[in-house]
Formats: sequence, C-alpha cells, structure tokens
Amino acid sequence: MDNPASGLDILFNPRSVAVIGASNNWNKWGYSTFVNLTGSFAGPVYPVNRREEAVLGCRAYRSVLDIEGDVDLAVFVIPAPAVPDAMRDCVRKGVRTGVIISAGFRETGPEGRALENEVLRIAREGGLRFVGPNCMGLWSAPARLRAYMFALPSMDGPAAFVTQGGNVGGSIMTSAYERGLGFRRYVSCGPAADIQLEDYLAHFGQDDEVKVVLAYIEGLSDGKRFLDTVSQVCLKKPVIVYKPGRSEAVAKAILSHSGSLAGSDEIFDKAMRKAGVTRVHSPEELLDTAIGFLTQPLPKGRNVGIVTGGGSFGVICAEDCAAAGLEVPELPEPSIEALSAIFPPRWSRGNPVDPAGDRNFIAYYLAPKIILELDGIDALIFMGFGSLAGISRMLRSGGQKVFVHHIPEMLSGIEGSTELIGEVADALLAGDSGRVRGLVDPWLPFVALLFGSDVKTVDAFMDILLSSPVLRRALAKTVSAFSLVARQGEAGLEKILELLDDMIALLMAHYLLTYRKPILSTSFSEMPQPIKGASHPYTTSAKAVSVLSKLVDYREHLERAGAFRHELQLCTLLNRVEEGRGAEGDVPAYARHQG
Amino acid sequence: MDNPASGLDILFNPRSVAVIGASNNWNKWGYSTFVNLTGSFAGPVYPVNRREEAVLGCRAYRSVLDIEGDVDLAVFVIPAPAVPDAMRDCVRKGVRTGVIISAGFRETGPEGRALENEVLRIAREGGLRFVGPNCMGLWSAPARLRAYMFALPSMDGPAAFVTQGGNVGGSIMTSAYERGLGFRRYVSCGPAADIQLEDYLAHFGQDDEVKVVLAYIEGLSDGKRFLDTVSQVCLKKPVIVYKPGRSEAVAKAILSHSGSLAGSDEIFDKAMRKAGVTRVHSPEELLDTAIGFLTQPLPKGRNVGIVTGGGSFGVICAEDCAAAGLEVPELPEPSIEALSAIFPPRWSRGNPVDPAGDRNFIAYYLAPKIILELDGIDALIFMGFGSLAGISRMLRSGGQKVFVHHIPEMLSGIEGSTELIGEVADALLAGDSGRVRGLVDPWLPFVALLFGSDVKTVDAFMDILLSSPVLRRALAKTVSAFSLVARQGEAGLEKILELLDDMIALLMAHYLLTYRKPILSTSFSEMPQPIKGASHPYTTSAKAVSVLSKLVDYREHLERAGAFRHELQLCTLLNRVEEGRGAEGDVPAYARHQG
Repeated sequence: MDNPASGLDILFNPRSVAVIGASNNWNKWGYSTFVNLTGSFAGPVYPVNRREEAVLGCRAYRSVLDIEGDVDLAVFVIPAPAVPDAMRDCVRKGVRTGVIISAGFRETGPEGRALENEVLRIAREGGLRFVGPNCMGLWSAPARLRAYMFALPSMDGPAAFVTQGGNVGGSIMTSAYERGLGFRRYVSCGPAADIQLEDYLAHFGQDDEVKVVLAYIEGLSDGKRFLDTVSQVCLKKPVIVYKPGRSEAVAKAILSHSGSLAGSDEIFDKAMRKAGVTRVHSPEELLDTAIGFLTQPLPKGRNVGIVTGGGSFGVICAEDCAAAGLEVPELPEPSIEALSAIFPPRWSRGNPVDPAGDRNFIAYYLAPKIILELDGIDALIFMGFGSLAGISRMLRSGGQKVFVHHIPEMLSGIEGSTELIGEVADALLAGDSGRVRGLVDPWLPFVALLFGSDVKTVDAFMDILLSSPVLRRALAKTVSAFSLVARQGEAGLEKILELLDDMIALLMAHYLLTYRKPILSTSFSEMPQPIKGASHPYTTSAKAVSVLSKLVDYREHLERAGAFRHELQLCTLLNRVEEGRGAEGDVPAYARHQG
Repeated sequence: MDNPASGLDILFNPRSVAVIGASNNWNKWGYSTFVNLTGSFAGPVYPVNRREEAVLGCRAYRSVLDIEGDVDLAVFVIPAPAVPDAMRDCVRKGVRTGVIISAGFRETGPEGRALENEVLRIAREGGLRFVGPNCMGLWSAPARLRAYMFALPSMDGPAAFVTQGGNVGGSIMTSAYERGLGFRRYVSCGPAADIQLEDYLAHFGQDDEVKVVLAYIEGLSDGKRFLDTVSQVCLKKPVIVYKPGRSEAVAKAILSHSGSLAGSDEIFDKAMRKAGVTRVHSPEELLDTAIGFLTQPLPKGRNVGIVTGGGSFGVICAEDCAAAGLEVPELPEPSIEALSAIFPPRWSRGNPVDPAGDRNFIAYYLAPKIILELDGIDALIFMGFGSLAGISRMLRSGGQKVFVHHIPEMLSGIEGSTELIGEVADALLAGDSGRVRGLVDPWLPFVALLFGSDVKTVDAFMDILLSSPVLRRALAKTVSAFSLVARQGEAGLEKILELLDDMIALLMAHYLLTYRKPILSTSFSEMPQPIKGASHPYTTSAKAVSVLSKLVDYREHLERAGAFRHELQLCTLLNRVEEGRGAEGDVPAYARHQG
C-alpha cells in the first residue's frame, strides 16, 4: 500500500466502469447493478457477460479485455469462484480499481478465505485497489457513481459514510434520503480484503467537502491504525461511530456475518472517547447526531434553556437533560420579567419556560430571544412549536380548521387589501423598513387577531423580522401569498402554512447565527421530518437532548486538543442563509438531487 | 366518594353536554372545544355564553339554568375565577359530571388552590364529579364524545389512556392515530382535584372492552391507592406507565407544572415492577409496547429466533437481545438442515438466520415456520422482509423497478392468462385446493421466476397458503388483481404490492395463531408504520426486542400471580382473522373511524 489515497481518488471518480456479470435477467444482482450504474453515471458503462451479445440494449463484452476504451473501475457481480480469472483480466487490461460485490469468500470458511487471498494477491500484484468482497458497493456524488447492487436512494451532500454492514447501511441511507441529508461518499466496504475501513476514514478526513463522517463498524482488523486515523480525523470534523458488539452472542453473530473478531466493547468505548469519536447506538441516533453536527453550532457549555408549548413536554425534557448530564439552570429575574411581559400570569416563571396553554402564538417565537441572550444559557431546546406544519397537520387530522382558514374572511373586511399586500411586499423586498412600518402599523391589530396575539407582541416580532434581509424576504413571500388565498382556496392556505414554516426555520437560523448557540427543536409527531434550514425537529426531546450533549462533548474534545476554531465550524452552510446566498429558496442545502 | 365508577359511567356516556364558555371567537379555546363536541357527539350540545345570542348558529344560553333539557356533562372553558359560580349553576341544574379545562388553580399558588378547593366543595356537595381542572378534556369512543380543547385525532379501539400531561397526551394520541391504534377512552386528567388518576385506572380495569391501559404520570397524591389499583388491573390486562421524574430538576419542573410532588423514582420503579406494571420511558415506547401487547401472544420464555434479510441486521438484533436479557439460542441440526434446503450454502447456518443476500424471496417466508416449530424458541423477530411495501418504496425511491413491474410482460407470454386467473381465483374462493393445484402447478416455474424463487420453494409456500381459508382468500384477491395490471398500469401494480403486503400480514397472523408465539417484525425504514393485522413493523430491532422483553416480563408476572390464562388473552381480535370474521378486509381492526 504505497498511497491508499490515490487509489481512492480513482475509485470515487472513475472515467469509465465495467460491470462484470451484467445481466438481462432481472432476478440477478448483475441486472440491478448495471441498471443503477447506467441510470446515473455520465461516463461509459460496459457490460461484461460471457454468454450475452447485449445487456439491456448495450453491446456486451465477453471479457474486460475486449473493451476498446480504458476502464477505470470494474464492478464484480459474478460467483466468487469466477472472480480470480476476471481479476486477472482486469489487471491485464490495466484497470486500477474494483468493487467486488460477489459473496462467498472468508465468511464461508477456509476455502473461501483461500479464494479471497488469491484475489487479493492478483490485485496487489497488478496494482488494482478494490472494495469488498461481499459488499453492496458505493456511491460517489461528484461522479454520480452508483456502483451498487440495488437501487440506493442518495443525494449529494456534506456527509460521508462507510459501513461494514450493507443492509443496515442501505436502510440508513434510505432514511437519510427521506430526511433530506445528502452524502458526498457512501461505501459498503464488506470485510475489506484490500482497501481498509481506515483508508476510507482517512480519505473522508482529507476531503474538505466532507463535513461529518459516519461509520457502522462490526470489528477492527488493526485497532491501532483505526485509533490513529480517527484521532486525526476528529481534530478536523466529527466522526460518528455506530458499533454493536456489547455481548458474547453478538461477537458470534459478527464472526459469522463478516468473519472479523469483535474486541472488548469496554476497551473500544474508552478508546473512542479518548480519540474524540462520537459513539451512537442505533441507526436513528446516527442520523440525528449527524444532522445535529451539520445544522448546529458547538455549544460552549452544558446549560440548557427550554421553551415549551406544554408543561409535560418541559418535564420530560428536563428529565432527559438530567439523564444526559446537561443542566437546566434557573433564569435571572430580568429574564423572568421579560417573559412575564409576553406571557399570561399563569406561565411557569422559570426554566423550562411553559406559557401554560397561552394562545398568543407569536409570543412563543419571542421567548427564544430572551433565553438565548443570557450568558448563562449555552443552548436552547424549542419544543412543540418548532414546526407549524406538524401542528397544523395534527389539528387537521382531527378535522379542525387552523388559523389560516380565517384569512379570506378577514381580508374581505379590508378595502384594497390586494393593493396593500403588494405595496408591503415591495417595501420589504426593497429593504425599506420605514415604509413597511408605515403601511403595516395600522393593521397590527388585524395581524394580532389572526395569530391570537396582541399588538405589542406583534410589534416586537416585526422588529426582529425587519432586522434581517433574509427574514424580510421570507416575510415578503408570505405576505404576497395572502393575495393568492382567495383565488387558490385550500391550496393557497397550504402554501401559506408552508411559507410560515420556512419563516420559522429562517428565524431559528437567525437566532442561531446571532447568538451562536444551538437551537434544537422537537415536533409533535414521531414521524421523522426533513431538515429545513437550521431547523430539524427531533421526534422526541430525548433525541434532541442526546444530540446536544454530543455537541458539547465534541467541543470539549476539540478544546482539550487545542483544535477548536469557532462554534460554526461545521455549519458553514448556515452562513449562506445569513449572507442571502442560500442555494434553494434561502434555505441551505444539506442535500442536492442529481441526475 | 361513594362509588367513583358510577360517576365515570355518566362522564363517558352522557346524553347531553353543555359547553360553558362556548365562543364565536376562533382564537378562544371555547370555540375549538365547542366545534370538537358538535363535530362528533350525537346528543345535544348546548353553548353557554353570557354575551352571545348564538354560538356558531346554535342558540346560546346565558347559564346552564336556562337550558330546557337535562344536562349530563358540563365542560368549563371560562376563566378560573368564574368557575365557582358556573359550578353552582350546574349543581342547581342537576348536572352530574364536568370537565374543567380552565387553568389558574393550584398550579398558580395559594390563591389558586383556595379557588380549586371552593370549586371542589361546591361540586362535592352537589354530587357532581369532574375531570380537571387545568386539563385538555377527554374522548370516549362509544359516545363519540370529544370533550376536548383542540382537535384531537382519535378512533375507537381497544386501548384506554389517562394522562397527567395534556400536551404529551395529545401528541401520543396523534401518533397513535397515525399508526392505526384506536382508543375506547382517553382522559387528560390534569392535577385531578376530584376524580383521581386511580379512579380512571380502576374504571379501565373493569371495562372488558379495554384490552390495554396506558398512563402518563408525573406525580401521585395517594401512592398506596395507586399501587393497590394498578396491582388489581394488572391481573386482568397490562398497564403501561410512562413516568418521568428521575432527577431533582424534573421534580421541580413537575411541581411547577402540576403542583404535585414527585416521589423517589427508585422506589416508584420497584413498586411498579412488583405490581406488574410495564414501565416505559418515551412516548414512542408507550405506543410500541401497547401495540405489542395487542397484536402479540405472551411468550413462554426468553429464547428468540431471528430471521433477517441482512447479516448486519442480525448482528444488531442479537446485540439488542443481549441488552434486554433475551437469549438467541443455537439451532438444532435438523433445523439447520431444513434451512440449508431453502437457502444458498453461504447462509449463516445459525441463529440469527441470515441467507446472506439470497434473492429467493419466497424462502424468507418459509424460514419463520422452521424456527417457530422449535420447542426451544419462544418468539421470532422477523427483520427486513416484514413489509414488502417498505422495501419496494425504498427501491422505487432509488428509481428502480420492482418485480411487479415485470408482471405484464410475463403474463403476455401466457395464452389465455385472463381465463386462467379467473379459474384459479374461483377455485381458491371455493376452497377447492385440489383444483387450485391442478390449475397452478403447471405455472409454478412462472411464479418462481417472478419472485426469484425455485419450484420447490414455491410449492412448499403454496401448501401453507392453501392450508388456511383466510390465506386462500387473500391469495384469490392477489391473483385476481393480476388481471387488472394490463388495464390499470402503475395503479394496478401498486394494488398488487398492497395485496401482497396484506398477504404477508395474514401469513404472519397464521404463523402466530398456529404456533401461539410472538412474531415481531422490523422495517427498513425509520418511518413508523400502521398496524396491519398481526404485523406492526417496528422501526428498529431495539424497539422490537424491548417490546418482546416486556411481553415476557408480563407473562412471568401473571404466572407468579396465578393469573395467567392463555397466550392469546390480549390479542382476541386476532382470532377473528383465523375465523374469517375480520372486520375490514380480513385484517383485524385495532381502530375504527367514527363519525
């Protein structure tokens, strides 16, 4: 292994691919693998098949040696015993990299191991680096390369993921796709005969486009090299490791599955902590944590403010904080006074902040500011009102109209409302806050009525919205949509809810960038929700709290190692919002669909 | 309190309801509460409002005393200071039960407590029993009674739930609705001035239609009575308690939220175990566990068989079992031989059963039978292939065609396929297995090709399907749908996937009833999925395993107490499937939509 990185560069950015075992039979992996590759990769994909003249309309080759052009990557989807010969052909052809999807090597016993060693020897002698065997393949976003055995939903994005378990990796990738998290690289590495787990991790560490590294690990073949590698990577970006193996039974299952021997979990856990690795214990937690790192600043301490739409939510969150070693400190008297000014007398008068069923829904969005301003608060958990869409979905599944339904009747009472809407939107887009105020101020009572608020609260809220160009633009969009309601009916109302939801996400991003403190929100629903700006509602407070504690741990590690730069070092994408350079509708992209 | 149960009967089945504080202003709880009630309850709902002539088109009354007819239930949605007078009117009117949604009582301090005591005294003297104050209301399915402050999605079903936290209760009810779990009763009981937590629990215990009891608890006012009550209920049906309070900070938050003092959690936990209560620590776990109790038999021991579509899933599941105190025993040689006959040589040859990427997808559905037949196996965890819909969704979001897409081209190769389909369906519905065999056997190679299987496996699978009337009917439906594919295109294919998914759910119910052992399946997705028959795919193996361990704990408790009757005592609904009396398309109903 002279320079593992160079091999990986070709692997992730080949100019051409051959699929050895490409098939017309849709019940074979050689079919789905070939379909996947041709569906996304822009360069030539050559099917290699000993018996067919053509595969899915493409001229087939009996051997890679018959291919006229160069082949950078060979994907093997043939029975294990046929791999050595095919590998010899690849070496002769000058192929530099491979992905061996075929199973039937070390995991089947001594004969399989001998076969694997033979393949490895041929490849090493021929200077061919390969992934696998017994793996599912890989995804590389810049090359749109889906060298994968079944259809893998994947998008471009800031994460990189290597997994020793193909199935669990595939289901994590599917969930990530549904949440809107994209990956620059994904590798199902299998038992890793040639390119090792550590090689992928080192590669991800060196790639500045990768902001967070994920790994599913069952066993290590070279513990020292692994530790050295992750220790280095952790100084630059978080490494999140999901590794089972706490029990004897599991060590046995791992042996049978991947042929690798799992070490003592206790030793592993200690070593991980020392290296700065973030360890998780489920697929959900892996994604929750990755998204937390990407969307949130690294908090400077363990003091949490909680703002909740319901007392029981606050109780549960305080419990979760205690379990995770986070503090829920008392609030100073001036903050209690400030909150008393916006909430009814029955509010909890402390942390967790619970307005006790207040219907002044705008006041909920002022409370984070009052909390985040405090030096003694390092992070906010915003419960229950982090997603308007979630709330209105709940209300509507109960068959109830939500506030937006009342917009048409209220607008009909205002003469010239369409013109007023147009003028306000124009003034907002022009950044003329004075003019906006002149137009809007007479109507504050109307807005207050619509949102169950009062003029004073709406006034304070307007000040915040007008202070940021991004929020002004979001408000212009929402205001403009009001004029569509009369024409579009239900669809127009849906649009307004969606725009209000965007505005909340942007407001949270605004608070986050202003105070440089994490804001983790929770939803009313157990349905995982997609990332929206800096806002990714966690399904339970326990999950939000667990992620927050991991952010603190990582910052503490960086500070101990002298490698801490600034809170926002991971969520660079967020800065784009503030600068108004958001890729998609002012909301930063954690994922990008590709062809 | 002479007979708390009698008061509760009227509360849950009133003939008429008055809403004191019903309002035309949609920014008031008196509006949404009134809308909720009139939208579902069949009896008269009287709006009481001091200032309005009518509320939402219904004649309004200045006081309950002005109402001509009898009032069984009064719902209070007025400011706390106005409650005593309104309560006096109710007593004078002869109202027997109430729901006080209004907040501003003991949780606000000594003055509030005095107000609460006054209300309690008036009600007690007048023989009026009430829920609350500071609660969200209740749902009672037989009466279609939604005496609730906001739109609560709810369906009829076998569960009952009392919560001391209205918000967390509401979000749990919403999630339950989305999962397809219905409730016979739901009560947000608030701090419970009059009717106590224990009264609701006792009432649920006595109601034979309630099969599982859920409770969210922050504090207890009478620990002894609570223990006595749940101990009694637990002998009849499972009681699942979600109670935070493990820390000091939490005890404080609870004090501020509900005014009740939380006791030592350690003591509580021990007492719960002794009483037979199933304790959980999150909203998700509460629902996961309730659904587990309702859909699964109570296993006789801790030995788990695991069948998985991927080695890493098996590793993770074995880890989860070890953590939960469940065993994953070795398989006896004859079972290994039987599995070797249906899986390729590379399969794991042990428990967890991992066919290592076998594409013979029908073989996966035979494996459960081989495992469940074993005396040494008490339960099965069926991973990854428990939901076809989940798998095909994953494949399709990756842009790949799934096997059903190939049906039209394959059918086009068979002369007279439409007639054949009709004859097979008729023979299946007639229960004429011999005739089905005569028609189908020549086409087994076709079926094998379609599902990537072989004739021998398809043949064994057919034997199972033909052995049960329910499965024969499900198969008839699926086969009939084949003839629609040509006409309906994509929609027809979706229908087939759905019917195949139903068939898998019914097959699992068949195995479950045959072997009287739990079968918990897991999905590829983190999206919670609705219940389907005996099949409710858990999002992770950790969740399935945790539920399974709770089923074992409960059975052990029942056996210790001499109260164990039979494994299926909870999932009586399942018997309907076997008897062919399923309410909705042969799939048992855990929830039923109502008007």
